[in-house]
Amino acid sequence: MGRVYVVGTAQTPVGEHWDRSARDLAVSSIVKAMEEAEVGEADAIYVGNALGGELTGQEHMAALIADFAGLDGIEALRVEAAGASGGAAVRMGYLSVASGLKDIVIVTGVEKMSDLAGPAVEEALVTAADEEYEAVHGLSFVALNALLMRRYIYEHGLERKDFAHFSVNAHQNASHNDHAMFRRPITVDQYENARLVADPIGLLDPAPAADGAATIILCSEKVAGGKPDSAVEIIASAVATDAIALHDRQNPLFLQGTYESARRAYAEAGIGSDDIGVYEPHDAFSIMAALSLEACGFASEGQGVRLAMDGEITLEGRIPICTMGGLKGRGYPVGASGVYQIVELVQQLRGDAGANQVDSRLGMAQSIGGSGATTVTHILKSSR
Amino acid sequence: MGRVYVVGTAQTPVGEHWDRSARDLAVSSIVKAMEEAEVGEADAIYVGNALGGELTGQEHMAALIADFAGLDGIEALRVEAAGASGGAAVRMGYLSVASGLKDIVIVTGVEKMSDLAGPAVEEALVTAADEEYEAVHGLSFVALNALLMRRYIYEHGLERKDFAHFSVNAHQNASHNDHAMFRRPITVDQYENARLVADPIGLLDPAPAADGAATIILCSEKVAGGKPDSAVEIIASAVATDAIALHDRQNPLFLQGTYESARRAYAEAGIGSDDIGVYEPHDAFSIMAALSLEACGFASEGQGVRLAMDGEITLEGRIPICTMGGLKGRGYPVGASGVYQIVELVQQLRGDAGANQVDSRLGMAQSIGGSGATTVTHILKSSR
Repeated sequence: MGRVYVVGTAQTPVGEHWDRSARDLAVSSIVKAMEEAEVGEADAIYVGNALGGELTGQEHMAALIADFAGLDGIEALRVEAAGASGGAAVRMGYLSVASGLKDIVIVTGVEKMSDLAGPAVEEALVTAADEEYEAVHGLSFVALNALLMRRYIYEHGLERKDFAHFSVNAHQNASHNDHAMFRRPITVDQYENARLVADPIGLLDPAPAADGAATIILCSEKVAGGKPDSAVEIIASAVATDAIALHDRQNPLFLQGTYESARRAYAEAGIGSDDIGVYEPHDAFSIMAALSLEACGFASEGQGVRLAMDGEITLEGRIPICTMGGLKGRGYPVGASGVYQIVELVQQLRGDAGANQVDSRLGMAQSIGGSGATTVTHILKSSR
Repeated sequence: MGRVYVVGTAQTPVGEHWDRSARDLAVSSIVKAMEEAEVGEADAIYVGNALGGELTGQEHMAALIADFAGLDGIEALRVEAAGASGGAAVRMGYLSVASGLKDIVIVTGVEKMSDLAGPAVEEALVTAADEEYEAVHGLSFVALNALLMRRYIYEHGLERKDFAHFSVNAHQNASHNDHAMFRRPITVDQYENARLVADPIGLLDPAPAADGAATIILCSEKVAGGKPDSAVEIIASAVATDAIALHDRQNPLFLQGTYESARRAYAEAGIGSDDIGVYEPHDAFSIMAALSLEACGFASEGQGVRLAMDGEITLEGRIPICTMGGLKGRGYPVGASGVYQIVELVQQLRGDAGANQVDSRLGMAQSIGGSGATTVTHILKSSR
């Protein structure tokens, strides 16, 4: 098994790109990432995209993007795992380079969500839940997460506003990220007084649907050896699953798949959670950030929210999360977000994170599908 | 890079399974394949599915299937490349075993198409074409293939009925396949007199939309070593792409991506087209079978149909194709069909093909997405 490095990254700003299509966003990020990596061609491209069929009438997205990126004849496949599609594409790229079959691989995450209005987007998103036992009853993802958050509040004697610190941290960090959708800080008061969406989830809780594309260039040791300044190594890649429906989990407040995915990644890297200096969780809702912190060993069960209340998730805290804004502040182009996370971790590990720079040699990114049925974990190591 | 073997296979009958869901079909094929392979667990499952979102409201299919198959916590991802989704999932399984990271991997292809009526299925299928430049103009896949077939007839001085031999061969072979949808032979006259769908394509030309699931168990040399009688080796795995829209190809009658995919596979296996003794093409339409034969070197340009007219594609011919019925006779559960092809090749290479047995040690399967934008090629070798 060969070693795998990231040698180039690029991202489009996240937001509502009314004048740009999915292929356009994807291609612009590919061109920039290849320029940064100083590679003129690649052996394959793997695309993470969750909802192209539902939201834009376009499946077969990998061949389409390869075609419009001018990558004639290249191997191109799309990987889908709902909200974890971006991480899943990174996983596929990792496997192909680790196998020794490919030297240079492009991984692109892309999602175009603004072409359809709210209810249609919600309907598309819920295809990630169990259609026969959840979606059919009208359980949207906001509703599923509201159930989890309400139960968490009940179990651990908290209040709704205690979750505010996740969104406050995300917006604070996004305010220094030129590619983020929400570049303005918010306060605990604003979080608490925001309009309710599905009690206890308010308007400043969920990550916003958005358009965007991000690309990373993966390569083998042979190629990375020539780029010692920019190369960041992926030292672990792991995927684990859990029951897709909330009601099929023994303890809905413990993300068993996320735990297992992190456990496998730690084992592969030969480290523990204490060694991770920066963590990009899948904060589609603040309850998901809280449960992820617990599943990965950064907080014990029931202490994820308290970790945030204590300021330990900020840039100066014990385990900085969402350092460039996370899904909440940067925006959540669903199938692209797992690749955005890697782009941001590479910024951190190269020391290119500007005002948001943290001091760390090891970073972890987690891409989650549905309410936790799929978790893809990657651990990256700085070569500095 | 490690060697990769198929040690277990299973398939559900292809047809209209009104009383069974996609997960149900998938799980039954997984259970049977694991029994046949005599493995109690696996390291990962990769799922090929093209249209679960459009046709059943279910994305995130890999986690769902892993869950209902009782494969707790397993790595599970879905790969999509339109009609090539099944082949693409095999490709991902191949990469993960070849990398040395996985010893036993499940690859399942599944599609449930009978829940929706005809026009909705046609609308779903066309998401594999270029949405902005083809689908938006009302070009369905029947229409795209009718354009190709009409041009081929014009260029090569043929008649519509000359294509009949593809469907006649497929139905003849399907008549001995218990898992096939159309187990009755047809005649050239029946083909010629069948109702026109989109001139020159008639009702007996396209492969039928259908429900079905097929599973193969892939493993490393270490595991396969204990199963010398049943193991069939995958000696080549290759993917190549072409322009997604017909109008962007220099010569629409030459499948450049299919040519390139086959060329890479031949090179990897260290063989030429003459060494292949059985070939499962992506005969979604007879014109695709003809163009595939030419792109892979079994016939020169313009001679693919003549090869069929000369009887060279039958079980006794020079290059037997669709030996268990192909997409046309066995039925075409879109994202599952690439896995069905491998199951059938393994039957041939193990000598388990009954009345349809051909004498060959090397077989090739090709899974195509759209009108040729993605082609996945696998070459399998008998250990007998």
